[in-house]
Amino acid sequence: MSKITFLGGGSFGSALAVLLAEKNNIVNIYDRNESVVNEINIKRTNEKYMKDLIFPATVTTFNNIDEAIEGTDYIVLSVPSHVIRSMCKLLKGKISKDIPIISIAKGIEENSDKRLSVVIEEELDNPVVILSGPSHAEEVNMRLPTTIVSTSKDMKYAADVQDLFMNSYFRIYTNDDLIGVEIGGAVKNIIALAAGVIDGLGYGDNTKAALLTRGMKEISRVGTALGGRLETFYGLTGMGDLIVTCTSMHSRNRRAGLLIGKGMPVEEALKEVGMVVEGVKACRAFYELKEKMDISMPITDGLYKGLFEGRDAKVIIDELMNRGKKSETF
Amino acid sequence: MSKITFLGGGSFGSALAVLLAEKNNIVNIYDRNESVVNEINIKRTNEKYMKDLIFPATVTTFNNIDEAIEGTDYIVLSVPSHVIRSMCKLLKGKISKDIPIISIAKGIEENSDKRLSVVIEEELDNPVVILSGPSHAEEVNMRLPTTIVSTSKDMKYAADVQDLFMNSYFRIYTNDDLIGVEIGGAVKNIIALAAGVIDGLGYGDNTKAALLTRGMKEISRVGTALGGRLETFYGLTGMGDLIVTCTSMHSRNRRAGLLIGKGMPVEEALKEVGMVVEGVKACRAFYELKEKMDISMPITDGLYKGLFEGRDAKVIIDELMNRGKKSETF
Repeated sequence: MSKITFLGGGSFGSALAVLLAEKNNIVNIYDRNESVVNEINIKRTNEKYMKDLIFPATVTTFNNIDEAIEGTDYIVLSVPSHVIRSMCKLLKGKISKDIPIISIAKGIEENSDKRLSVVIEEELDNPVVILSGPSHAEEVNMRLPTTIVSTSKDMKYAADVQDLFMNSYFRIYTNDDLIGVEIGGAVKNIIALAAGVIDGLGYGDNTKAALLTRGMKEISRVGTALGGRLETFYGLTGMGDLIVTCTSMHSRNRRAGLLIGKGMPVEEALKEVGMVVEGVKACRAFYELKEKMDISMPITDGLYKGLFEGRDAKVIIDELMNRGKKSETF
Repeated sequence: MSKITFLGGGSFGSALAVLLAEKNNIVNIYDRNESVVNEINIKRTNEKYMKDLIFPATVTTFNNIDEAIEGTDYIVLSVPSHVIRSMCKLLKGKISKDIPIISIAKGIEENSDKRLSVVIEEELDNPVVILSGPSHAEEVNMRLPTTIVSTSKDMKYAADVQDLFMNSYFRIYTNDDLIGVEIGGAVKNIIALAAGVIDGLGYGDNTKAALLTRGMKEISRVGTALGGRLETFYGLTGMGDLIVTCTSMHSRNRRAGLLIGKGMPVEEALKEVGMVVEGVKACRAFYELKEKMDISMPITDGLYKGLFEGRDAKVIIDELMNRGKKSETF
């Protein structure tokens, strides 16, 4: 039995909190939103973020972070990527250095373009474990078979977290390629956004399959150039997560792309989807990177022109289809 | 301008015949079914195999193979995999050795488990080119952007066929890994069938993504052991074709799996789908192969038990999820 503290009572955090509680752990959740705290503590539900979830009595929610982390064995950062750094700052000086920090966010830090484990390490001296993979929170909550990856600089911690979370419907693989896991999780959002555009344009399965396959080539090209391993990009955190994102309406990236493909101006589509669309951020970051490093990423290139230079989506696809003749392995 | 003869007036053959005619080629189609021949020649349609297709005047259909191949520059074998050998026997002694034989079938030969290019070479001395990739005929006919691969032992012919077919919505990549292209196209049907089962069981996007990703590991393990290249399996003819098959109701493999997942007995499901289900054939062939070669293919293993040993699908998934803890790169 361990004590685990979740910082953030969102959908994936809530689903994992229940999963850990049902494995006989003590679970604390910190959330800055008092209504979420009260709802979980009193009604044992979290209607805003996750329907049909009942929190067992061993889950307690706090509005005070000091109380939430007291005596904890693990901390799970269950906040979006843009809140990771400020949440780490809140923890500074308050936790012992041997407590693993587990992050379930995907993406890169805005402006700095840093991987999230780097952000956490800059703020805290604790071991960092990243959990990533194709895992809609709603489906974890429904106990549908799900697989994800646990990675860390020190695989002792990755294996420890594998033990902590794994159960009969939530299967965890370890992978020691921390860079590959984090880069794959961020850059795949570019292709997911583009897949939404394809759907919005009314193109078919052939086009989608082409986009995903050639998109994976781009992910692996830039990812290996940044130090990740090819097989990681074709694993659960790259290809697996891309497939789940591209075939589901749960994905904000795909929804934003869909609206753009249907002809809605980019700014308006992003406003409509509401929350942060990681693919837009990733497209800008990796476009700049591939220009600097001279890596061929024609889909990223096309999406960049569509998002930031007002180029028409149909024209972009046309240009992609009518480039010079190529070998597949180019 | 070339003269191309299609042997078989099915859906993909018809779509490609029109595509080539619209590129100013002369196209002949041979079909043994007189009603298909007459319908194309007189009404310029092929309602049974492809709705909304109008054959240009430069397409002529024959019920006599000798007339169809007279003076032809290329022959396209547009028949299912189990008819390839008998069709080649029909051509024996009738064509000059320099005419490329283009095959658009996927799968392996029943009983012999041979790749189709090997079957063709056993019967004819002509150069063989394989066209393969994620390409529903219906969508090619709708001019939706589609990408496929052209491969051959002699890349001169693969490049020639790339030139012959490529247009603004049909993009062709060459790939010199003939073995990888053919094996990927056959073994992916195992995973497509399993994906149908997952859908039939009512599992979600997480489970599907896990199956496809871990399934690709199996494809690449057995495929590289047989002499194909890893990157081919993660290209259009492997991963790309798997994605298109697993997300579409056009696929017989997926439809058969869906019925089995819903609880229909295997024999009944195969009868319901009617035509040959390549995934069943491939599952038996690659199960025997992986036993002989000692390759880890747990999904193929599970599907084999479900198809041929009556094991319950839900139990199989449970067993897959609850194997020992693993590293992703195992």
